[in-house]
Amino acid sequence: MNAKSTYHLSCPIPKTEYEHILMAHGGGGKLTRQLIEKMFYSGLGNPILEKGHDGAFLPSIKGEIAFTTDSFVVDPVFFPGGDIGDLAVNGTVNDLLCCGAEPLYISLAFILEEGLLMENLWKIVCSIKKAADAAGVKIVTGDTKVVERGKGDGIYINTTGIGRILPEQNISPENSCEGDVVIINGHIGNHGIAIMSARKGLKLNTHVKSDTQSLSGMMMDLFNKVPGIHVLRDPTRGGLASSLNEIAQSSKSGITLYESSLPINEGVRGACEIMGFDPLYIANEGKMVVILPQESAQKALAIMRSHKEGTESRIIGKVTSSHPGILQMETTIGTHRIVDMISGEQLPRIC
Amino acid sequence: MNAKSTYHLSCPIPKTEYEHILMAHGGGGKLTRQLIEKMFYSGLGNPILEKGHDGAFLPSIKGEIAFTTDSFVVDPVFFPGGDIGDLAVNGTVNDLLCCGAEPLYISLAFILEEGLLMENLWKIVCSIKKAADAAGVKIVTGDTKVVERGKGDGIYINTTGIGRILPEQNISPENSCEGDVVIINGHIGNHGIAIMSARKGLKLNTHVKSDTQSLSGMMMDLFNKVPGIHVLRDPTRGGLASSLNEIAQSSKSGITLYESSLPINEGVRGACEIMGFDPLYIANEGKMVVILPQESAQKALAIMRSHKEGTESRIIGKVTSSHPGILQMETTIGTHRIVDMISGEQLPRIC
Repeated sequence: MNAKSTYHLSCPIPKTEYEHILMAHGGGGKLTRQLIEKMFYSGLGNPILEKGHDGAFLPSIKGEIAFTTDSFVVDPVFFPGGDIGDLAVNGTVNDLLCCGAEPLYISLAFILEEGLLMENLWKIVCSIKKAADAAGVKIVTGDTKVVERGKGDGIYINTTGIGRILPEQNISPENSCEGDVVIINGHIGNHGIAIMSARKGLKLNTHVKSDTQSLSGMMMDLFNKVPGIHVLRDPTRGGLASSLNEIAQSSKSGITLYESSLPINEGVRGACEIMGFDPLYIANEGKMVVILPQESAQKALAIMRSHKEGTESRIIGKVTSSHPGILQMETTIGTHRIVDMISGEQLPRIC
Repeated sequence: MNAKSTYHLSCPIPKTEYEHILMAHGGGGKLTRQLIEKMFYSGLGNPILEKGHDGAFLPSIKGEIAFTTDSFVVDPVFFPGGDIGDLAVNGTVNDLLCCGAEPLYISLAFILEEGLLMENLWKIVCSIKKAADAAGVKIVTGDTKVVERGKGDGIYINTTGIGRILPEQNISPENSCEGDVVIINGHIGNHGIAIMSARKGLKLNTHVKSDTQSLSGMMMDLFNKVPGIHVLRDPTRGGLASSLNEIAQSSKSGITLYESSLPINEGVRGACEIMGFDPLYIANEGKMVVILPQESAQKALAIMRSHKEGTESRIIGKVTSSHPGILQMETTIGTHRIVDMISGEQLPRIC
């Protein structure tokens, strides 16, 4: 738990006094104030945040508003490809995009465990800043609570986002209908396997990195150029299978996945075989399922592939009326099997 | 940890299968779905929430928007006068009011500890519903995560709120100026002392109840009838002294408190004497500090006293130019002392 030498250079809170989070950092007094000013304002500051009000004052937003919340309890906090900070920003940004909205503002609430290294908090704050800048969103309000050692797990983060719904899109899970195609922007299962491989006690040499990323650039371009998208969903907890099951149930249409088209990289496939997992149920944190009419598919694919988040975009399935409410897999040998929602807990605390 | 008999009647999740929260309730699969539908939709449901989207779709809001977030980690979860559920709603509603905004929508994110009694979760959901109805806000989107036994403390809740800023008010901590009066709507310190008295190991027979309440009714009436309020602040963590210090610093004006006017009830005073606490630093959860010009004071007091949340409203201080940035107390014997911000942690996990 000793601070590394870089700490003295990069962390704005004087080492001698506060190398770790104390209960008093959550008490609402001087130390809370100091943490907010020296750590959060200096890392994340912008004029709206630094107003120091009980809440942010946001300029008016034209039209309907998207509003979404997520708490992040990922274990471990640092993992190959990211950390809880960028995960918390990207997760909420991508949820706003799933609503067909332009992500605008994010709130940030920390539950810190007494003893958390200031150096680690600072690293996370820097990740948050970088992810917010990449996604084009502003952190405008926040909160910090501290719980006693043993009543948390280092750090939990809640982000809640506000976006402007784009009037030219009408996106909802019940909108999928026969003839639609199902597109995904790349390989599945990477986030979940990266987390598993980073956990203590699990010696998986997979070299798989989390795919955590904001999809703002790719999706805003898609929104601008392809009207009439029916459904969007980021297949996080529960993986692709759970997301598609929910869509099938909401829309009362069937979905068929093509096993031969599913993009799964070797590291993920190997890790799943060793642990007896199905990649269809493994969480993703930088993927988007796009369901839209067949006639728009090629245009959408071309746009998605022109962005770094979507170079591997492809069609992985179709919507059908033949098995309403059910997700089916067309296997590589031509048979069909039902892919149900996950019933137990395969990968706890994945996000 | 046994369920009481009322559990079978009031809790919608079948006892036999799920008497406690399991890790799988946070896995994003069938059990998560079941928890959302049977517990949250049935307790809190409204058409926006039940859309089951990645986020809520809100109708457009005219003008500027207030946006505020708070995580609640209060210990214990149930305390005299309330529980973490109504506290989480009231806290965020009151923060929106502090921005001079009409509270409209709230998001709700749970971090549940494995083993939490379903019966207790259901009680909390019912408190949330009651508090949201009383405040006139809708719960429109949510999230549920589960952490392993020993990595949480039963339940943590984040609420994030959206409100419509009322254009006829311009409220900000830096607005207080010489000649303003400081009003509070009732007794201070009740929430903090109620929490302390409920903690294991502390045998305080104070009979003090938390003041947790939404101030929507009183404040919306005040907003409508008294233009030109300068500052609003709900003195929660860190108590009245911390809030007034922050205002003094933001506005670079001085604040003088009249000790003889401070409303402190006997139970709070006695508990503070026993424990060596100063009621000025004890948290409140249903109080509002209103700072406005002298000439509006009597009208504001009359309006506030006409509401059940404000029957005890009174003037407790004034804003002055004589000691800028500093909070001073005029004592009952006529002397003056500086009241600083709290520097340590007197009452951890009070909200």
